Amino acid sequence: MAAANGRSPVASSGTRRRGKVLEKAILDATIEQLRTVGYVGLTMEGVAAEAGTGKAALYRRWANRDELVTAALANVLPDPTVIELGRDVREDLLALLRCVRDAIALTHGTVFQIVRSEAAEAAGGMMHVVVGERVMDPSHELILEVLRAGERDGRVRPGAASSMVATVGPAMLVHYVVHEGPAVPDDYLRSIVDDILMPLAAP
Amino acid sequence: MAAANGRSPVASSGTRRRGKVLEKAILDATIEQLRTVGYVGLTMEGVAAEAGTGKAALYRRWANRDELVTAALANVLPDPTVIELGRDVREDLLALLRCVRDAIALTHGTVFQIVRSEAAEAAGGMMHVVVGERVMDPSHELILEVLRAGERDGRVRPGAASSMVATVGPAMLVHYVVHEGPAVPDDYLRSIVDDILMPLAAP
Repeated sequence: MAAANGRSPVASSGTRRRGKVLEKAILDATIEQLRTVGYVGLTMEGVAAEAGTGKAALYRRWANRDELVTAALANVLPDPTVIELGRDVREDLLALLRCVRDAIALTHGTVFQIVRSEAAEAAGGMMHVVVGERVMDPSHELILEVLRAGERDGRVRPGAASSMVATVGPAMLVHYVVHEGPAVPDDYLRSIVDDILMPLAAP
Repeated sequence: MAAANGRSPVASSGTRRRGKVLEKAILDATIEQLRTVGYVGLTMEGVAAEAGTGKAALYRRWANRDELVTAALANVLPDPTVIELGRDVREDLLALLRCVRDAIALTHGTVFQIVRSEAAEAAGGMMHVVVGERVMDPSHELILEVLRAGERDGRVRPGAASSMVATVGPAMLVHYVVHEGPAVPDDYLRSIVDDILMPLAAP
């Protein structure tokens, strides 16, 4: 910390990246390492090598691997709470499920690949918590609010605004990712809304 | 193979198990090892020790770990094709989803724990294929048939007999397992049918 953030005179590479630029390179390298070697194989050394910097640059910013991975995920995950809702039930549901879909794609499905996996009670658990808290939980809550608002003004069948119904969209996305891979096509996403959620919510 | 199946005179333990009894003990030990050390940690040695026998007894029956695990899974997985259907859409759906639920519980959720996990492209992949072929795929097909039969005689809304709708039940079960663990309570299973599938299928 005292060692003058990235401003050491040791200029081994031509252009020395500093501050936010170096931080972003490290966070990007972390996501890339998650994709290629996974959480279990991810090390501070590996991320430093991927980012073309030294371990000290990492440890100056994050105390350990978990802090680094948490920061890297926070940096890429979309925020469902900034989505403008209230236009139309169908559009609102599509927008929220796209956010969940993008969160999965951005983390390359890693979260659902290693959730509760063998070596990963702590590993997947930690990533699961981050994505859960930042994307999955608020998305579920917002889907439920969209359904409740629809129920109040008669656009949604009474009783359809339930936690179970709000779980169907994310569950179909996770199911797709587990079976087909992390990139969920928009056609599939629209089919979740048009063939399942809208008929289920129809008054 | 030539060594007289389990009939060697080396009687180290008091009562020597043979044939089907020994085979069942080994298959049970394999499932237990899957549960405790997982597929990645599972070895022929470990299973032999768990079953209280020698490696030779395993290799006489199965050429390798994958053959052993496939046999062990086949031994415990329920068969959805023997379920009597055609009574009632709700009862049929409940019975098929219980079969999927039991398949997950019997394999202790292992299939979805390690599916597409880091070390397990081959590992989880192989188990995923076995459970997919024996339980998930036929269950999906039978759910679709139940919906189609209902559509034909007017108990199910036209258009609701789709592959997407037939995926919702299994997807909700997998989602539960990934987030809560392998034991899905019957209340949750009934809620999938009564709060989602039946409203979705209602004419």
